[in-house]
Amino acid sequence: MEEDEKEAVKRANQAFYCAFEKLDIQAMDAIWSREDHIKCIHPGWDARAGWCAIRDSWVLIFNNTQALRFSVSPIDIKLYDRSAILLCLESISTQTSEGWIEGKVVSTNIFEKYNNQWLMVHHHGSPLVAG
Amino acid sequence: MEEDEKEAVKRANQAFYCAFEKLDIQAMDAIWSREDHIKCIHPGWDARAGWCAIRDSWVLIFNNTQALRFSVSPIDIKLYDRSAILLCLESISTQTSEGWIEGKVVSTNIFEKYNNQWLMVHHHGSPLVAG
Repeated sequence: MEEDEKEAVKRANQAFYCAFEKLDIQAMDAIWSREDHIKCIHPGWDARAGWCAIRDSWVLIFNNTQALRFSVSPIDIKLYDRSAILLCLESISTQTSEGWIEGKVVSTNIFEKYNNQWLMVHHHGSPLVAG
Repeated sequence: MEEDEKEAVKRANQAFYCAFEKLDIQAMDAIWSREDHIKCIHPGWDARAGWCAIRDSWVLIFNNTQALRFSVSPIDIKLYDRSAILLCLESISTQTSEGWIEGKVVSTNIFEKYNNQWLMVHHHGSPLVAG
């Protein structure tokens, strides 16, 4: 049962990175909870709270990105009754006018279960500085 | 009841920043859970998991810091049955040989309740880049 739930959380997390990689705002719409307490911190950015501000940040990122490729390693999942915390290491390739650039981001992703569906309530990505 | 719990979580969070500001490893020892799933991500660093690796990171920071001053604004607390998530904005002044330097960090701090005591299980700090 707990393993089933962990798999469901992993699938929700994969769907998040799939929406991110495809720069697909409609797919991202389906990932997130609409609760007031949702939060999103992109690497180097200030925290955004609530769906309007969070969706706006994704639109901004998607409109300013040519292409992305993700390789995500979920380091760990901690499952509670109604919530789950994932720690992920993201290896990101970003297409720019000068070619592809590589970066690494450590992310804390938190999901909550609503009506048998795991929805994202918190994404905190921080740049991994080499060395 | 929920307000009492939130106050207890806030006090645990304040105790964390108090230990951090005092560069006091014994105080930090009392803040953290010893569960296997505990995680710590310092700004720009890779994730550390488990108490040995996490304590080692604090010792490293404390040994390489002359003095710190914190001003911490808890942006929000989300309380679950046995866990709580805080989002904080840290304004940090660090003493260096060239004087005090200022920085801002956004932190996700997660606590779990054990025997009526709130202990830290997750600290994720990311640098806030100006602009």
